[in-house]
Amino acid sequence: MADKVRHTEIIKSSSSASAKSKDLLVVEEPIEIRVGYGDEDNRQQDTLSITMRTPGDDEHLCLGFLYVEGIISHASEVLSAKYCQNVTEEDGGDNVMRVELAPSVEYSSSRHKRNFYTNSSCGVCGKASIEHVQVDCIPVTGDFRFSRDLILRLPEKLLAAQDVFKHTGGVHACGLFDLQGNLVLHKEDVGRHNALDKLIGSQFVSGSLPASEHILLLSGRISFELVQKSVRAGIAVIAAVGAPSSLAVELAEQFGVTLIGFVREIGFNIYTNHHRVID
Amino acid sequence: MADKVRHTEIIKSSSSASAKSKDLLVVEEPIEIRVGYGDEDNRQQDTLSITMRTPGDDEHLCLGFLYVEGIISHASEVLSAKYCQNVTEEDGGDNVMRVELAPSVEYSSSRHKRNFYTNSSCGVCGKASIEHVQVDCIPVTGDFRFSRDLILRLPEKLLAAQDVFKHTGGVHACGLFDLQGNLVLHKEDVGRHNALDKLIGSQFVSGSLPASEHILLLSGRISFELVQKSVRAGIAVIAAVGAPSSLAVELAEQFGVTLIGFVREIGFNIYTNHHRVID
Repeated sequence: MADKVRHTEIIKSSSSASAKSKDLLVVEEPIEIRVGYGDEDNRQQDTLSITMRTPGDDEHLCLGFLYVEGIISHASEVLSAKYCQNVTEEDGGDNVMRVELAPSVEYSSSRHKRNFYTNSSCGVCGKASIEHVQVDCIPVTGDFRFSRDLILRLPEKLLAAQDVFKHTGGVHACGLFDLQGNLVLHKEDVGRHNALDKLIGSQFVSGSLPASEHILLLSGRISFELVQKSVRAGIAVIAAVGAPSSLAVELAEQFGVTLIGFVREIGFNIYTNHHRVID
Repeated sequence: MADKVRHTEIIKSSSSASAKSKDLLVVEEPIEIRVGYGDEDNRQQDTLSITMRTPGDDEHLCLGFLYVEGIISHASEVLSAKYCQNVTEEDGGDNVMRVELAPSVEYSSSRHKRNFYTNSSCGVCGKASIEHVQVDCIPVTGDFRFSRDLILRLPEKLLAAQDVFKHTGGVHACGLFDLQGNLVLHKEDVGRHNALDKLIGSQFVSGSLPASEHILLLSGRISFELVQKSVRAGIAVIAAVGAPSSLAVELAEQFGVTLIGFVREIGFNIYTNHHRVID
């Protein structure tokens, strides 16, 4: 498997001096997700997505992406997920993965290539974006409560587990915690959406979705798309070190997600559905 | 014009207390970029891109995006850039912009929708990504040098200008500085790519490209795509508060860009083309 970090030579500079030094970079490489679909006697192939990612966990990345996009919902719908054999290593063999869908899966190239807005009756706006999520997602459940102290301790636990960040400072991370605040799973990637796709893909493969009895921690800010992915995975609580956007808050509100931002050692902000936080 | 920030009610929590409070969120809304193209007697329309962005500077965002994608190169190639008149406000009128290209512009829907990898002879890999940039970009020029102290002072200048960040903590920013370290222009957006597209679009409209005699500062990390956009704008020096990725460093190296990361008050790292930094 391709490396996640790469050695490089740099010049470390300060106001008074500069000197050669060695450093590690997080690897960024494109991955193409191909989908095989159709009846057994009429298989077809489509390039679903090409995105920049950090190599590693590619099967989880691809299956997580297909899951959050609403293309697959159960493990039985995936026959296999493999690097393309007919792509040589020199041609990026580790960067092309083909997911073989069961013939029962209805796959539509045009529908699944994210051009939903052009087919939307209500135009291009935040409301339309949220309505689109309603096609594939239902409001989260999760009838539980947790303490404020539990949230305050999450970032240090995630940071302690972040191998690639420790060496490069160049990746985003997300971690899934149980209701006792134990880190169950975490993923790192140069793209924050990829990190979450990998995490959800891993839960998909292990049959652990929906992850309603869990808390998700994001290392960065909270965008609409990150909430969308989490809702699809049934995650009831999203906490983040950074700020949420307006549309992230609206989506979390409507889908019953407890959204928490600016998590620091001394406190945090609750934006939506605060009933899960013990007062 | 739509607002860039929105009021919300939050609960501020610490280990010992929690209380209702007011807060501001950065606005995130989709924008659809439509392109009008073709001969005068046979005009056609294509949806080029739909992306989440912070409202404001939409003309710059759209034209910057078209410029960095290699669709337009000169102001004469753009007849107009306007919000779609036939889209009502309720349907997201401020979220659909149509750019009217001059009949002379060769626009190909399939070519410009970023599916270049599938047509690439050398597969999907970092090398192919860099080769693709070579289609639209030439190495940057910029035969100048600057002091280390100049770089060290850039982040505080950008931060001082960041209105939306000050209120929300939820946006990325980029700033263009002259060689004396004066901030010429800056843009903020919930998406870091959008912020740079807006900045480049603004320079495009004012006829200031290539911006070779300038230094770009990014508030976050440096991805391949951000370097790609900068190279297209002819920017010779990219400095960032965050870390660069492996592919960002490779691209900067090949296109003559001085790439500087982890800019702090006390120092920074130079990754490529350090000859522009006075030793």
